[in-house]
Amino acid sequence: MSRVNLLILDGPSLNLLGKREPEIYGNQSMDDFLPALRAAYPQVNIEYFQSNSEGALIDKLHEAASMDGIILNAGAYTHTSVALYDAVRAISAPVVEVHISNIYARESFRHTSMIAAACRGVIAGFGLQSYRLAVEILQVR
Amino acid sequence: MSRVNLLILDGPSLNLLGKREPEIYGNQSMDDFLPALRAAYPQVNIEYFQSNSEGALIDKLHEAASMDGIILNAGAYTHTSVALYDAVRAISAPVVEVHISNIYARESFRHTSMIAAACRGVIAGFGLQSYRLAVEILQVR
Amino acid sequence: MSRVNLLILDGPSLNLLGKREPEIYGNQSMDDFLPALRAAYPQVNIEYFQSNSEGALIDKLHEAASMDGIILNAGAYTHTSVALYDAVRAISAPVVEVHISNIYARESFRHTSMIAAACRGVIAGFGLQSYRLAVEILQVR
Amino acid sequence: MSRVNLLILDGPSLNLLGKREPEIYGNQSMDDFLPALRAAYPQVNIEYFQSNSEGALIDKLHEAASMDGIILNAGAYTHTSVALYDAVRAISAPVVEVHISNIYARESFRHTSMIAAACRGVIAGFGLQSYRLAVEILQVR
Amino acid sequence: MSRVNLLILDGPSLNLLGKREPEIYGNQSMDDFLPALRAAYPQVNIEYFQSNSEGALIDKLHEAASMDGIILNAGAYTHTSVALYDAVRAISAPVVEVHISNIYARESFRHTSMIAAACRGVIAGFGLQSYRLAVEILQVR
Amino acid sequence: MSRVNLLILDGPSLNLLGKREPEIYGNQSMDDFLPALRAAYPQVNIEYFQSNSEGALIDKLHEAASMDGIILNAGAYTHTSVALYDAVRAISAPVVEVHISNIYARESFRHTSMIAAACRGVIAGFGLQSYRLAVEILQVR
Amino acid sequence: MSRVNLLILDGPSLNLLGKREPEIYGNQSMDDFLPALRAAYPQVNIEYFQSNSEGALIDKLHEAASMDGIILNAGAYTHTSVALYDAVRAISAPVVEVHISNIYARESFRHTSMIAAACRGVIAGFGLQSYRLAVEILQVR
Amino acid sequence: MSRVNLLILDGPSLNLLGKREPEIYGNQSMDDFLPALRAAYPQVNIEYFQSNSEGALIDKLHEAASMDGIILNAGAYTHTSVALYDAVRAISAPVVEVHISNIYARESFRHTSMIAAACRGVIAGFGLQSYRLAVEILQVR
Amino acid sequence: MSRVNLLILDGPSLNLLGKREPEIYGNQSMDDFLPALRAAYPQVNIEYFQSNSEGALIDKLHEAASMDGIILNAGAYTHTSVALYDAVRAISAPVVEVHISNIYARESFRHTSMIAAACRGVIAGFGLQSYRLAVEILQVR
Amino acid sequence: MSRVNLLILDGPSLNLLGKREPEIYGNQSMDDFLPALRAAYPQVNIEYFQSNSEGALIDKLHEAASMDGIILNAGAYTHTSVALYDAVRAISAPVVEVHISNIYARESFRHTSMIAAACRGVIAGFGLQSYRLAVEILQVR
Amino acid sequence: MSRVNLLILDGPSLNLLGKREPEIYGNQSMDDFLPALRAAYPQVNIEYFQSNSEGALIDKLHEAASMDGIILNAGAYTHTSVALYDAVRAISAPVVEVHISNIYARESFRHTSMIAAACRGVIAGFGLQSYRLAVEILQVR
Amino acid sequence: MSRVNLLILDGPSLNLLGKREPEIYGNQSMDDFLPALRAAYPQVNIEYFQSNSEGALIDKLHEAASMDGIILNAGAYTHTSVALYDAVRAISAPVVEVHISNIYARESFRHTSMIAAACRGVIAGFGLQSYRLAVEILQVR
Repeated sequence: MSRVNLLILDGPSLNLLGKREPEIYGNQSMDDFLPALRAAYPQVNIEYFQSNSEGALIDKLHEAASMDGIILNAGAYTHTSVALYDAVRAISAPVVEVHISNIYARESFRHTSMIAAACRGVIAGFGLQSYRLAVEILQVR
Repeated sequence: MSRVNLLILDGPSLNLLGKREPEIYGNQSMDDFLPALRAAYPQVNIEYFQSNSEGALIDKLHEAASMDGIILNAGAYTHTSVALYDAVRAISAPVVEVHISNIYARESFRHTSMIAAACRGVIAGFGLQSYRLAVEILQVR
Repeated sequence: MSRVNLLILDGPSLNLLGKREPEIYGNQSMDDFLPALRAAYPQVNIEYFQSNSEGALIDKLHEAASMDGIILNAGAYTHTSVALYDAVRAISAPVVEVHISNIYARESFRHTSMIAAACRGVIAGFGLQSYRLAVEILQVR
Repeated sequence: MSRVNLLILDGPSLNLLGKREPEIYGNQSMDDFLPALRAAYPQVNIEYFQSNSEGALIDKLHEAASMDGIILNAGAYTHTSVALYDAVRAISAPVVEVHISNIYARESFRHTSMIAAACRGVIAGFGLQSYRLAVEILQVR
Repeated sequence: MSRVNLLILDGPSLNLLGKREPEIYGNQSMDDFLPALRAAYPQVNIEYFQSNSEGALIDKLHEAASMDGIILNAGAYTHTSVALYDAVRAISAPVVEVHISNIYARESFRHTSMIAAACRGVIAGFGLQSYRLAVEILQVR
Repeated sequence: MSRVNLLILDGPSLNLLGKREPEIYGNQSMDDFLPALRAAYPQVNIEYFQSNSEGALIDKLHEAASMDGIILNAGAYTHTSVALYDAVRAISAPVVEVHISNIYARESFRHTSMIAAACRGVIAGFGLQSYRLAVEILQVR
Repeated sequence: MSRVNLLILDGPSLNLLGKREPEIYGNQSMDDFLPALRAAYPQVNIEYFQSNSEGALIDKLHEAASMDGIILNAGAYTHTSVALYDAVRAISAPVVEVHISNIYARESFRHTSMIAAACRGVIAGFGLQSYRLAVEILQVR
Repeated sequence: MSRVNLLILDGPSLNLLGKREPEIYGNQSMDDFLPALRAAYPQVNIEYFQSNSEGALIDKLHEAASMDGIILNAGAYTHTSVALYDAVRAISAPVVEVHISNIYARESFRHTSMIAAACRGVIAGFGLQSYRLAVEILQVR
Repeated sequence: MSRVNLLILDGPSLNLLGKREPEIYGNQSMDDFLPALRAAYPQVNIEYFQSNSEGALIDKLHEAASMDGIILNAGAYTHTSVALYDAVRAISAPVVEVHISNIYARESFRHTSMIAAACRGVIAGFGLQSYRLAVEILQVR
Repeated sequence: MSRVNLLILDGPSLNLLGKREPEIYGNQSMDDFLPALRAAYPQVNIEYFQSNSEGALIDKLHEAASMDGIILNAGAYTHTSVALYDAVRAISAPVVEVHISNIYARESFRHTSMIAAACRGVIAGFGLQSYRLAVEILQVR
Repeated sequence: MSRVNLLILDGPSLNLLGKREPEIYGNQSMDDFLPALRAAYPQVNIEYFQSNSEGALIDKLHEAASMDGIILNAGAYTHTSVALYDAVRAISAPVVEVHISNIYARESFRHTSMIAAACRGVIAGFGLQSYRLAVEILQVR
Repeated sequence: MSRVNLLILDGPSLNLLGKREPEIYGNQSMDDFLPALRAAYPQVNIEYFQSNSEGALIDKLHEAASMDGIILNAGAYTHTSVALYDAVRAISAPVVEVHISNIYARESFRHTSMIAAACRGVIAGFGLQSYRLAVEILQVR
């Protein structure tokens, strides 16, 4: 049985996870979290990529066009980027939008996603468990 | 070890699930789905309640104030009900907002949730699997 | 030849018809009007239901899903209820939205209908004759 | 007993009825429809006038100021014309606004009528039967 | 001298008063407050009714149409309910809108009342004393 | 000394002046008013033109491009016509916008003029005397 | 027992009370009303100050910073003055916003208060009794 | 025959007329203009008052309540002052709003007048001749 | 080989081209430009029609329904006319919207086209060369 | 070498500096700060004026028209006063807008300045050092 | 005679042309199209650059500052990028904005261009022929 | 005594300073200005970095997280970038937002800063002296 290939794609300032505003984003870094996530889903290849550049995120989405699924936390670009919306539409891989914090309980400009309409669904507010739920849903497809 | 008690609370027209606009909401009814969900989480008590009445949904939220978690698909009331927002705030049980369809890819009045800010998080767009992900996240708390 | 079955469904405060703001809604009550309407259309069964509760109106729409037509005066819920819009979409019976007064000549919040897009059409402004015109159009289908 | 004199006044592109976007406006032209309408109401004189010019429509409204009723389908001008609103207010004949399609289920700029507030009422969404309902209501006054 | 009959009508989640968000709504329940209020105004009959249902609140307003006054804390429905606005207009009893908290110092969606224009006046921000001021003003009329 | 040539240009429904909504527009027709106006300014040629057609008003503005002044009461087109704004800009004659009623005390859509920015100034609210004031200001230029 | 010191602070055009638009503001002047109010609360010192100047109202608020309470009817400045909002915040005395008329039933620009968020609460719509209710609430603090 | 008493009331920065932005407001000061204006209307008493203070302008309006007319150039307060609107409504003297420049051809915040709805009419864009036209219209009343 | 039949349809004030605001629209009139355009495309019949009347433009669009292409410069009607949008939709001929000036660099009300969504495409900003580019694209179809 | 003459002009409630909301405005009063500021810039005359009255601030701006620079902290009037904007434009002295707090991190109504467009620049958020930076920039001109 | 140097600058996801949403963007890739375009204009050097990065597009615009023309399809950045607007303004080369699809017939957020006001003109809706028309207009300058 | 380490971080098109729109941004380049600035503050290390890429600016902010201060002129990204706002919040170094031009006197989209709320303060409108004032304020911290 072939393995499932997933990409976790993180946007701006998510490289600072664990150090940045821990009351919002928690104390755990991706370096701590990813090994446990991969261990929990041994049948899934989980690639990880982070960039602060909107263009680099689009490049990566194009490259990952034929993967089994993409977990996209576009960070602040979620709320402003038509270009990411277009990139998600331009590829066939299913994309799940995730957020660590409950964006609907924060500043009003975080309540709107430019990207969600092109995604399969949205998971927001469960800390790093948001990523795990996205793996859970994408691994069976 | 004590069991986890969860309530699934469904709002207006979700009683017609499986018959109503199946291209949006799918062909499976809650009667078909719930046994499988309960079987998958034997350690969890899953109560189910549906009403078309905003007031009855609020009554039920109040009653469920001390449960371990509530999975709330408020349906159309999601987008208009300050009263449900207040009811969620008024109780201590963690509430997860779920949607079957990707509400962000539908009419613009469905892009806004009056309730999300009072919830722990939001899961939308994964069909009935949205409920399963919510159980997944609430059963460990 | 089988008879035509229609439901007239009236929303909040329409139980006060004839007593409530007669300069807007007229002096005739539904009790006065319905016998004449039924007499004018002997081949049509006209059921009547009124409720002040949004949930009860949705319940009734679900029950009436297979009738030949529904005449819906949702009253104030016309302008706020996504839930009624969804309920109309969830059933196959054709629904005609009616209003006694010319809602476009009143307060600006009455100029918008959340429900009309799911209905077959709208008749507004002709007093109780708005109901008769709706019967006229639905009896031939 | 004197006959009832009504004017049907059609606005821009309604001369193309039957040929124009038939999935919205149907396949029947006014030339086909009017004889049947006149036959159904033998006691009513039904004058018909169509123009693509806002000014010509206003001229005709002024001319028809003393008729027993005017059935006005202002087409696209419905949504933009303060001048037609003023013309309806300037005359004493009762005016009924009609639309062939359900304008509330189409583009958002068609949801607003500049004219309705000056009319007796609105009938929309019943194809050419919208005109018949307007005759029905105006012939008894 | 005949006694004055007043109704206090409380909306959604006000049944949780004293337990719900005490930093906003205080620690006193209606069960604690009402006896003191009735004692302070011995010449006034004070009926009390609470419901989480918009429809039930409307039903009660209709029933109370001939009382000497109604003190309405519609809670969250204050900000969304055209139906309550209509119900207040539909009856002749004077209605005073009250709020426990200063709604103008909270979320922006609480700054707007759909109901106030139909009421005699508004009293907001004085805790349960808001109700007492409303009794004070209504008992002399 | 050469005479001053002015054009009074009246828009839609102003042909009904004296008959149309007299509580707003007064009881005097232009036929009554113009002789008195011409008598009061014997050194001025006052041409008069009225049309219900936006296009005809534009045609007339183009024809009058070299007059000494134009007094424009565009009626309802004032609030919607970019085309009239462009026509006023396209000619060199000074144009004064006039209104019989105080448009700022009427419906909100009458508070905005699309045309005023291209005119020399605006005179509104003085009944037919608004025209006289415009003649007064244009005759000395 | 020390007496309670209150200031009634009235804004623009309230000096004309009793003469100005009596159908809105009533026929009683402050000169008539104050003696009765003072008589009803003999244990309270009620200072009165009125000004049409926003700056003078701010000066007075600053002067009254240590009083037991301030009853502020800022009149038209209610709807526009950030400066009064700041002045209320800048002092420690509790301020109650009052209005004679029901501002929510008047022009839409009167529905918004720039000041309310800085006050303890709002009382509106009870004629001069609005002031009395404010004294009632402030005298016990 | 008794003389006509008019007040010209000028708002903020109009004391700098002739020196301030002459390309907008011209080179003539009120000191130069007023003698000529008074000479042209010998039967009219023209009082003049200017203040930069909104409160002082309101005070003056109240004082002038029984004059035959008031010519009000409220300058920048035109666009922001509900208090001046109320003051104009509070008095019985007819008020004509004037502006030296064509406010509709300037910044968008100058296109809206808070005051106009309470005035008899508006004259804008004719330089200091705007005042003369206002005298012209008020002297005959 | 059959010739290509195109219509150039010009809207309000475009008859003044070459004389009107030459800094925006240039110094060349259509009379100067058309012969050169026809010479450059000898295989194309280029009909020309201009009107200041919205209705006449609609009439012409209907007449030209079967041409090979229409080049529409609706001038100011571009920004306001739903009726022209409907007329373009009502015919099968491909329509190209053109503008002489760069409408996006002018007043904000010129940034929106009511018509573009019904057209094949838009060409704006190249002076009279905008028409030539439209011929270039339509002649090959 | 002639000295530089600057005016510091403070708006409403800035007289309470040091006492008013110290967590926002700090603990230092102007009386404490000014001597140090003057000492730091011995070649500069620093005049100081504070008023709670918009009109008095305008009067002072007019008086200071020929100074070498004005440092304007208009306080709450910053966000509402077209009159101050006009007064700054009406004089030739360069004006620097300053704020003690970072207005962009506070309530949304403080994010907009009506005055900034007429000033040379804006300095906000540095406590009383905002004034010093303004002196620094104005003293060299 | 010197050759004309043009740059075609393509924004995000345009590298996927021919594969991405072919019902919108067509089946032809830039690799297929460019040779034909260059062959059609042998006297023009056509450089091509594509990037998904807003910053790289700005870099390239700066580099191309002295070319004879730039054809810019900024893709999704068209609707959001003030930075590209500034970059176009910062260089002297004429820039033509092009779009493959008719952006005005798609989602509403595509109807607005942040960039167009800085460009010479806009060509949209003609598939890859939009580029050819832009070459046609730029080659003669 | 340890030296103060500051970073000047310049956004898009600021590399063209001195060449780009000199009437707005002046004639001096950063290469000319920086040596003088460094000379004026010998105790301060001033690092300089410019990029047209939003991502590169975020990368640099992260790298500079522990500097003594950052002077950020985000150029056009100021008005659109939530990602830069988040990056400023994610680091502990104090950031001062600067602008060369008075952004409040330019296009309306430049009046809003997405970033300012996360910064210590804002300095705008003083040409390159804006940077100097920022150094002045940051060097003492």
